[in-house]
Amino acid sequence: MFDIQHFTQINPPHRLLMGPGPINADPRVLRAMASQLIGQYDPVMTGYMNEVMVLYRELFRTQNRWTMLVDGTSRSGIEAILLSAIRPGDKVLVPVFGRFGHLLCEIARRCRAEVHTIEVPWGEVFTPDQIEDAIKTVKPRLLLTVQGDTSTTMLQPLAELGEICRRHGVLFYTDATASFGGNALETDRWGIDAVSAGLQKCLGGPSGSSPITLSDEMVEVIRRRKCVEEGIRTAAHQDGDDEMIYSNYFDLGMVMDYWGPERLNHHTEATSMLFAARECARIILEEGLDAGIARHELHGRALVAGIQGMGLETFGNLQHKMNNVLGVVIPSVVHGEEVRKMLLEDFHIEIGTSFGPLQGKIWRIGTMGYNARKDCVLQTLTALEAVLNRLGFKTTQGAAMQSAWDVYAQESR
Amino acid sequence: MFDIQHFTQINPPHRLLMGPGPINADPRVLRAMASQLIGQYDPVMTGYMNEVMVLYRELFRTQNRWTMLVDGTSRSGIEAILLSAIRPGDKVLVPVFGRFGHLLCEIARRCRAEVHTIEVPWGEVFTPDQIEDAIKTVKPRLLLTVQGDTSTTMLQPLAELGEICRRHGVLFYTDATASFGGNALETDRWGIDAVSAGLQKCLGGPSGSSPITLSDEMVEVIRRRKCVEEGIRTAAHQDGDDEMIYSNYFDLGMVMDYWGPERLNHHTEATSMLFAARECARIILEEGLDAGIARHELHGRALVAGIQGMGLETFGNLQHKMNNVLGVVIPSVVHGEEVRKMLLEDFHIEIGTSFGPLQGKIWRIGTMGYNARKDCVLQTLTALEAVLNRLGFKTTQGAAMQSAWDVYAQESR
Repeated sequence: MFDIQHFTQINPPHRLLMGPGPINADPRVLRAMASQLIGQYDPVMTGYMNEVMVLYRELFRTQNRWTMLVDGTSRSGIEAILLSAIRPGDKVLVPVFGRFGHLLCEIARRCRAEVHTIEVPWGEVFTPDQIEDAIKTVKPRLLLTVQGDTSTTMLQPLAELGEICRRHGVLFYTDATASFGGNALETDRWGIDAVSAGLQKCLGGPSGSSPITLSDEMVEVIRRRKCVEEGIRTAAHQDGDDEMIYSNYFDLGMVMDYWGPERLNHHTEATSMLFAARECARIILEEGLDAGIARHELHGRALVAGIQGMGLETFGNLQHKMNNVLGVVIPSVVHGEEVRKMLLEDFHIEIGTSFGPLQGKIWRIGTMGYNARKDCVLQTLTALEAVLNRLGFKTTQGAAMQSAWDVYAQESR
Repeated sequence: MFDIQHFTQINPPHRLLMGPGPINADPRVLRAMASQLIGQYDPVMTGYMNEVMVLYRELFRTQNRWTMLVDGTSRSGIEAILLSAIRPGDKVLVPVFGRFGHLLCEIARRCRAEVHTIEVPWGEVFTPDQIEDAIKTVKPRLLLTVQGDTSTTMLQPLAELGEICRRHGVLFYTDATASFGGNALETDRWGIDAVSAGLQKCLGGPSGSSPITLSDEMVEVIRRRKCVEEGIRTAAHQDGDDEMIYSNYFDLGMVMDYWGPERLNHHTEATSMLFAARECARIILEEGLDAGIARHELHGRALVAGIQGMGLETFGNLQHKMNNVLGVVIPSVVHGEEVRKMLLEDFHIEIGTSFGPLQGKIWRIGTMGYNARKDCVLQTLTALEAVLNRLGFKTTQGAAMQSAWDVYAQESR
């Protein structure tokens, strides 16, 4: 029997989220979201939308006019770009170095692309030459990359790929969901045509809004597929020459017309999520984007030192590790899920499990956004060490902490 | 030159949102959204997800197991259902009585459906016979209806359509975005196979989450198109026999597997929006769904009385008006946008403009969700009367207010 009295008010327990994301939101972001709503065409609201465009241009390091939000989780931003750019039958190349490369293949396949992949073992990344060779062979219309694949914790270097793509007439997209804000990303300097991201990783916000940016060339590709909605079409509207986009929600031409001066009604902007996205950007830019990335690098490095000091093995090529997440090989004497459960139940600290070939083999520990802090790193290390000791893995008590502290001490010298 | 100091904290002015939605969020919903995040597989989080399913079954008046949220605005729920149900080439029938009927056609066309429509003049709705006749002629696989089309303020009666659809082997979907929570909707009793809604109308929340419900028959249709994502596929997973769904984000099979016991990773649930959706449902169910609908009816009726008392003409067939929104014919002596601007600037009250054939001809005034209250109705009426008087439209001063008050007085007798 249904009884509404059984449903008490939202009151989640305190957790320290040290997995690959989502992580704890910055309290400023939560407060921004608690602001009362205003109408979608209120000049204050459209003013906030314009400000979001300016703020995210700074974060993406771009002059791209079309820098805005897609209303959905990170994956909605990926799909909006792929559906808007890929025509059925288009060839795309995906360098796969983890689960999220497979996701790009999956989404591209749903766009009816002809999907080509190259792969490296999980824990490695591609050289520019490997990617250029594949481009020469496949001759794709688009290169779809992941910048930081949390499934392996690896960060694909992108700086040289734009030039390669330009040379071969290939459009260049990157999914920066997990890396954005915690690792360098230079949209214009690196010649990236489209980037999508999310709030719930290094940006310190909740999942549910996906910032994207589109180059002029990408915009042109999308504009050629223009198709104005029946209910609001007037005689002045004209469709493009190219094949329509097989989605209304993800038709970025329509999303641009909604964010642009025409303010052509499409969806109703998710106001609270926009407030969140704006505050995430403000927090990062007040600290300074480079300073924030350096902070992620520092705490990431301290975490590595602590984990190694504990006698645990790290996963993958550390040269190419994302600043904000670390793979830790689960020692054979313990059961990975038992450790995670004890950390969550007794310390309210969450670390991540893994997918696919790494399932049961590594944990993923994140230090990002609001949780890229010394206290978070040290608390996680002490708790993990205590749990491991309890479950029979021997460490030199305190060595992990000293190693992490050494990193911080060096930094402040 | 970019300067972060120019971007001050979110601080929207107070507005009374009396348009067709979004409207002011219930402060309880805003507070729920300000709660700190927890991990997506935290037992507390999956517990909240399960509770959301139970709460929305009550709101949708259904036993449907698959009652959940799509992470995006209302339109994302529509598109998720249409993309998941419609195979390219499928025939669909859309009875169009306003802009949002055109939207269903538009989305169905993007799903590559063969779209058939019937139309009535804006301000009217269809009889069951008109719809059955069209079903006999078109023989569609799906009937796509709008329950309440805010563009005309009309509410399509749905009670008899399920039986008709059952008789002709047609799947029956309705878009209840604007009507949900403020007008009767009996998913199971009326035999509706799929319903989608949004939070920003009668539910008193922000845009950005779309509650949906799917009948067993609809689920079967979707399951036949199952296609497990590459990155997380195991040997135990099997694809369906039918054509794949041409979207990953909107593949409701995947969304079900994420909400179901397997908890198969898809998107990362938009936690803050889920907290909002849960609180919206709790507020309504504490009042009682029927009591809440009666409240919408009462304030809608008071608004009609007030508007008529002011000597203004209402739009459309009042017999079929939605409880929560009223079309008001703009008197010829004033300019509609000038009135709206003055209401917004001098009273901070927002009323709605209109689309398509009604643009510039009617205003749309809403009384819904948190704003379905006596004070909101009376404030709006006094302000509108004052502005109209100021701009040269003559009323019998105070008559509007007395008429509205009479409605309230009758009710409390």
